[in-house]
Amino acid sequence: MTSPAVPDPAGSEPDADTGLLAPGWTGSPAASATGDRAYLRALLDAEAALTRAQAALGLAPAEAADAVGAVAADPAAFDARSLAERARDGGNPVIPLVADLTKAVGEPYGPYVHRGATSQDILDTATMLVAARTLDLLLPDLARTERALARLAAEHRDTPMPGRTLTQHAVPTVFGLKAAGWRALVLDARDRITAVRDALPAQLGGAAGTLAAFEAYGATDPTALPAAYAGELGLRAPVLPWHTLRTPIADLAGTLAFTAGALGKIAVDVLTLSRTETGEVAEGGGGGSSAMPHKANPVRSTLIAAAARRAPQLAATLYGSLAAEDERPAGAWHAEWEPLRDLLRLTGGAARDAAELAEGLRVRPDAMRAHLGRTHGLIVSERLSAELAPVLGRARARELLTELAARAYAEDRNLGELLAEVPELRGLDLAGPTDPARYTGAAATLTDRALERR
Amino acid sequence: MTSPAVPDPAGSEPDADTGLLAPGWTGSPAASATGDRAYLRALLDAEAALTRAQAALGLAPAEAADAVGAVAADPAAFDARSLAERARDGGNPVIPLVADLTKAVGEPYGPYVHRGATSQDILDTATMLVAARTLDLLLPDLARTERALARLAAEHRDTPMPGRTLTQHAVPTVFGLKAAGWRALVLDARDRITAVRDALPAQLGGAAGTLAAFEAYGATDPTALPAAYAGELGLRAPVLPWHTLRTPIADLAGTLAFTAGALGKIAVDVLTLSRTETGEVAEGGGGGSSAMPHKANPVRSTLIAAAARRAPQLAATLYGSLAAEDERPAGAWHAEWEPLRDLLRLTGGAARDAAELAEGLRVRPDAMRAHLGRTHGLIVSERLSAELAPVLGRARARELLTELAARAYAEDRNLGELLAEVPELRGLDLAGPTDPARYTGAAATLTDRALERR
Amino acid sequence: MTSPAVPDPAGSEPDADTGLLAPGWTGSPAASATGDRAYLRALLDAEAALTRAQAALGLAPAEAADAVGAVAADPAAFDARSLAERARDGGNPVIPLVADLTKAVGEPYGPYVHRGATSQDILDTATMLVAARTLDLLLPDLARTERALARLAAEHRDTPMPGRTLTQHAVPTVFGLKAAGWRALVLDARDRITAVRDALPAQLGGAAGTLAAFEAYGATDPTALPAAYAGELGLRAPVLPWHTLRTPIADLAGTLAFTAGALGKIAVDVLTLSRTETGEVAEGGGGGSSAMPHKANPVRSTLIAAAARRAPQLAATLYGSLAAEDERPAGAWHAEWEPLRDLLRLTGGAARDAAELAEGLRVRPDAMRAHLGRTHGLIVSERLSAELAPVLGRARARELLTELAARAYAEDRNLGELLAEVPELRGLDLAGPTDPARYTGAAATLTDRALERR
Amino acid sequence: MTSPAVPDPAGSEPDADTGLLAPGWTGSPAASATGDRAYLRALLDAEAALTRAQAALGLAPAEAADAVGAVAADPAAFDARSLAERARDGGNPVIPLVADLTKAVGEPYGPYVHRGATSQDILDTATMLVAARTLDLLLPDLARTERALARLAAEHRDTPMPGRTLTQHAVPTVFGLKAAGWRALVLDARDRITAVRDALPAQLGGAAGTLAAFEAYGATDPTALPAAYAGELGLRAPVLPWHTLRTPIADLAGTLAFTAGALGKIAVDVLTLSRTETGEVAEGGGGGSSAMPHKANPVRSTLIAAAARRAPQLAATLYGSLAAEDERPAGAWHAEWEPLRDLLRLTGGAARDAAELAEGLRVRPDAMRAHLGRTHGLIVSERLSAELAPVLGRARARELLTELAARAYAEDRNLGELLAEVPELRGLDLAGPTDPARYTGAAATLTDRALERR
Repeated sequence: MTSPAVPDPAGSEPDADTGLLAPGWTGSPAASATGDRAYLRALLDAEAALTRAQAALGLAPAEAADAVGAVAADPAAFDARSLAERARDGGNPVIPLVADLTKAVGEPYGPYVHRGATSQDILDTATMLVAARTLDLLLPDLARTERALARLAAEHRDTPMPGRTLTQHAVPTVFGLKAAGWRALVLDARDRITAVRDALPAQLGGAAGTLAAFEAYGATDPTALPAAYAGELGLRAPVLPWHTLRTPIADLAGTLAFTAGALGKIAVDVLTLSRTETGEVAEGGGGGSSAMPHKANPVRSTLIAAAARRAPQLAATLYGSLAAEDERPAGAWHAEWEPLRDLLRLTGGAARDAAELAEGLRVRPDAMRAHLGRTHGLIVSERLSAELAPVLGRARARELLTELAARAYAEDRNLGELLAEVPELRGLDLAGPTDPARYTGAAATLTDRALERR
Repeated sequence: MTSPAVPDPAGSEPDADTGLLAPGWTGSPAASATGDRAYLRALLDAEAALTRAQAALGLAPAEAADAVGAVAADPAAFDARSLAERARDGGNPVIPLVADLTKAVGEPYGPYVHRGATSQDILDTATMLVAARTLDLLLPDLARTERALARLAAEHRDTPMPGRTLTQHAVPTVFGLKAAGWRALVLDARDRITAVRDALPAQLGGAAGTLAAFEAYGATDPTALPAAYAGELGLRAPVLPWHTLRTPIADLAGTLAFTAGALGKIAVDVLTLSRTETGEVAEGGGGGSSAMPHKANPVRSTLIAAAARRAPQLAATLYGSLAAEDERPAGAWHAEWEPLRDLLRLTGGAARDAAELAEGLRVRPDAMRAHLGRTHGLIVSERLSAELAPVLGRARARELLTELAARAYAEDRNLGELLAEVPELRGLDLAGPTDPARYTGAAATLTDRALERR
Repeated sequence: MTSPAVPDPAGSEPDADTGLLAPGWTGSPAASATGDRAYLRALLDAEAALTRAQAALGLAPAEAADAVGAVAADPAAFDARSLAERARDGGNPVIPLVADLTKAVGEPYGPYVHRGATSQDILDTATMLVAARTLDLLLPDLARTERALARLAAEHRDTPMPGRTLTQHAVPTVFGLKAAGWRALVLDARDRITAVRDALPAQLGGAAGTLAAFEAYGATDPTALPAAYAGELGLRAPVLPWHTLRTPIADLAGTLAFTAGALGKIAVDVLTLSRTETGEVAEGGGGGSSAMPHKANPVRSTLIAAAARRAPQLAATLYGSLAAEDERPAGAWHAEWEPLRDLLRLTGGAARDAAELAEGLRVRPDAMRAHLGRTHGLIVSERLSAELAPVLGRARARELLTELAARAYAEDRNLGELLAEVPELRGLDLAGPTDPARYTGAAATLTDRALERR
Repeated sequence: MTSPAVPDPAGSEPDADTGLLAPGWTGSPAASATGDRAYLRALLDAEAALTRAQAALGLAPAEAADAVGAVAADPAAFDARSLAERARDGGNPVIPLVADLTKAVGEPYGPYVHRGATSQDILDTATMLVAARTLDLLLPDLARTERALARLAAEHRDTPMPGRTLTQHAVPTVFGLKAAGWRALVLDARDRITAVRDALPAQLGGAAGTLAAFEAYGATDPTALPAAYAGELGLRAPVLPWHTLRTPIADLAGTLAFTAGALGKIAVDVLTLSRTETGEVAEGGGGGSSAMPHKANPVRSTLIAAAARRAPQLAATLYGSLAAEDERPAGAWHAEWEPLRDLLRLTGGAARDAAELAEGLRVRPDAMRAHLGRTHGLIVSERLSAELAPVLGRARARELLTELAARAYAEDRNLGELLAEVPELRGLDLAGPTDPARYTGAAATLTDRALERR
């Protein structure tokens, strides 16, 4: 530890990043849970837990555990920048950290620091701690999002709006179903995150995953140690050391990419529905522009959408690291660290933004209803095909609708009006079949059903 | 259907791909399960199931179901190339397929073809069928792989070999533990695939996911239809139409990328251990070179490794499609089709290769043992540090080992010999501590424990 | 060659792909240039050129070159499927192809087939031929696209429309500038493709890139051979064999990903402007829906957008293969083949769609102009800030505009009307400053300038 | 600016990253060129240049340019963390920066700050400045690398070693050719970086790329401004505002991914050749392990390899952002910032590591030569096939070699010895043909030729 007592002032840290390029996650719960300080804390937690676990199994004196624990309790006493610089030599930050921690613990207990472990044991375990802590902060934001969406879905189960496919109006739907769909994705994310979070394992294997050094230091059954160590940390005990069996990393990758993408779906829908010409929803806040007071930018959606664009490729890097040779790979492991942190941050930031977005979303049922008329009534042509076929025959029904559709656009009139003038249809009550608001099918029922999921 | 009765000869299909660039999956079970013919069959199965489900609910005559089913049962009667070409107009192959199918069914039941459905209902459902069928073929190859690896692990639970980290010998391990680790990844893949496969849902929602057209065609409760339809196909009934709630696609993406990567770990280990200088394992077959008879290339591993390099980015494209706007997106959906098929094929092909690799792998315990001596005995230096510290004091032990390590390399002698000459250590029995084969820690125990998993 | 004379009928090729899932590129020029048949042809071209080059340098009899050339001229005589299946043994299709070709050439010239070469020489060279041929077909589609966009830009240099940022109206622009920007991207793509295409090198190095076998077969200066070989094929002569120096592949990757993305920009703009509520442009064709006659889906844009979503990840796989160990890597090379073909196809298909899109695009200046009024005149608020500040003072100007902006929305009136009622502004001519069509800045000039580029 | 005079101490910046997880780039020239401080400086440089350019064209008083320039010259006076937090509102850091800068400039020149510009003008321009500055620091490291590799290539043009394909010995090569190949990739990277760096453009377009606000503020020809602005910054003047024409970003993406991959090729070769069993090269430094003194980890290669694994996916995200809708996209732009910075850092760090790696690489010709014998002389079997065919006939030569190859392995003897015992070959001088060191073909000539490139 070069100078634990006197942390450098910011002025002397010209390379420090404090989030200037990251409005999507800066200041979010995930940000503080994933910063260098948080990693340093987790690394120290892992070292302290290791000595405690050894003490609990009689492999180290209780005083050693206390001594290591006391020093490790104060991350601020360590110089993260110096550790970062010295990490270059051996390629990871645990090597200099062990040196600093050992020195700070001093005699006689310094030698118990990190005893029998390898750098990867500590860094992988710390990563799991950081992931667990970040996910614990992310889940409440998903819960807020889910609740807000449930409210929107319930409130708008009967709010008709155009259903759109390939950018064009297709048939009517209801806004409640859209919100219920968003919520279903959030619940899918929650379920996947919860499962992955509960399975996060500690890592302990020693130099090549055989636990041999622990035996050399006196353990008669070294396999007892990983469980004790995991227990100290609230993580799962691994069946095998997973230095190159990277299922936990891949599971995090997939789950976080899914979550970012699920929130991304909400974001792109909000962006689309917010466009100036559409205006069916608006973000509650809305980033302003001083020169253009009419601009209420959908900033939350924009930042979520940006996260959703980045997460898949970060996950790809992590999936790519599964193919890790030997008992520790030369590159695949090192390539995991920053992308996993980035994924945690981006997704955590997106969850915060999604919560604010969902809670603040303004819905404009009148705009939705008005747009149902944008296709001159043709938004119900599918229904009319079905209704008129038994009356006119299938071929004649189609012919008529095609002709009237063309006229509706050409004459700027509504299909319903034109139908009312067709002699063959005299006497038929077309008010229902031509009302878009009455052609929402099972949308409300589906909304209700989706809301039953908890 | 331009000419269903006379399929074009290969000579007139200059653009057809038959796997020339794909030795990794050509001819595998996954190949035939994912070809255009297989997709065509699945599309027809989906159409037939839809009519059957409608008939079962009284929404169509039983004869219509029979008529559609009879025609749909013969994919060879449809011209895949013509469908492919006509798919351009509307952007998907279901539109021309419905036209051909309707025509082939003819009057009076043609109008029941595809009634109330949207193209995406059929294509998504067919994709789930293809995925289910491919995974059903892939799982047995994983099972073969797992069994072969279990045998290798049991057989070699006590076969010592160098543990390697960052390309260098670290401490000894046993080959059984390596094989058990590979097997653990295969079981992780199996568990994830099984879970995802069992959850694959049918898709049914109509034009914008409201099931409205089914109501227009007479269903009093259109929500009963998706369940009946899913039941006909052996797929899960969806809670909501998932046209733009792409959890099933993302789950497949993550699971397949995981599986390819898990098999990729085995491959890169085999490649590494097969290198001419190492030769601790060899593939059973070994691709030959006529000009160079000594070359026994690890071809199975090479092809698996190639699949593992590609799968993550294919999965990334699928995760990226989660952010799908509206009720059907303009591009995100279309971007899923080929990458998902590619993932299924690549992973299926890799599973076949992995089974052959595992079943045929030749292990060379003598080479492994010989390599334990490649570091002049220093591969046990970690143990000697632990053993000598209580005898000599920690500082002196380290100093001595550092000095002797340098001498061992300089004089090309073994560390054990040099230690035996150290006066301070006279009388200590160093035979055990300097024998790499006796420094494998809990490796055999961990192997046993891992093999308990079924 | 298992049965060159009797190609299998399609009926017995159940795994053949004929583009069913690929409306984006099926039937395009790039499709036929990249099919298995095209690769087979290129492989044979490479083999024939190698023998010809050897003959030209006196290393083989001219009759051998003729004999090999004659057989290689007919790809249809080779069984692509059988080659694909036999490629599994050695991991690439050249090994069985050389066997079939040698057999077909027969004695006495069969031994000259492939003499001194390695599989990778032929496959890499064939890949360059395929790339060259595909790019030669793609460039005319880019040229068509460029010309159509130039026409649109010139025609609409003064067609005002809303400029949009973060989905919201910002300030006016002109459609000509948008089209000119699209064209600039197409020209950027053309320039990059042209440069890469002209640099595509032949590959020749022998087993490990030393050209040693050619020397063994009599060449006094084997370095003369690659140049002769490249000359036969119309490719560049490489400075070094590039078996593991993959600059040409990476350059193709980047250029194709750029091209797909450049066309993707056009597509997302068209998709956005085509939305039912906006309707400022429409695709000429427009995929229809029989049940919904009002749907004119922007299918060309959709398929281009899908290609743009996939290309970056395909390129990533290719960039990842740069890190190729040894003189031929075990996996990185094999991972290139299908992704590079996919990139060529996708981009080629997108270029075809872009040409049709650009040539058929319908522009609706009246809709554009009407939308300029959608923000109650606030789309010119930036200008009014600048104009009123000198009159009212900066603070008062801003205060006034903020107040009137709120009123404009609340009272559904136009900002211009409200300004006309402000006593402080009496006498000021606000007709110009409040006319969106007169606040297009240098848009027309920029359009003209961009069109000067050829 | 919340408190420019009193920068926060590090203790109060718990979220700051100082490189703890980034041994690959921490402390490198690229690190300080890409930190938040460097971006802040570049943003301020862009703002100052804008006012200066306006002053130069008579659109602002010279005193305004001086006043803005004076305040902008001191990035340390701005609170990066506060800017980062406030960036959340509008989604980018320029909005709060303009507020702080305007306030710090004060009256009367504050209103000239950012006049007529949009946030993206400043952020894009700053990004180009950061890119230019980073590339200027990266190029010297590539030059160091290239020089060291040229020395190695020249020194080892005649150092024979096994050429390896698919992990197995193929035929001999020389180490000089390998080093020359590495150098060729470095030169390819240098050429691409130099071209891209020289083309980096300034960005100026105003709210929607029409330069309209500059006209509103008095410019008669607003198109003169971008050139003046670019000139102030040493960047290229853009033909068009490129807010959504992202060629410069894509060019950086491709070039940086290429560079990382090119260096990655060197790294994977060094990793492979450094393996304990091979040991043909060793890194000069070598990360040590205190518990295992024999471990000399190839840390530089490991970190370069890790960068090469990440860069392609970061580039993919940037290529994906090409498809940017409207005049500023809602997400695609924001998704560029961190990945581009990551690419610059990773590649810059890899270049530093590559320079150290190349300059320090220790080559072991004796190990290389020894390994030439690892295949019992079969490494020259290709040559023997060619030499013996004219003597024995092609079929008999092959038969004999196949038989002797099997015996060589079975009897652990050298192929040369066995051949010497073959009666048919009596009298033939096989010393040359069986000497691996004399079967390096044109390797030395190719090395020389490659070294001619400057």
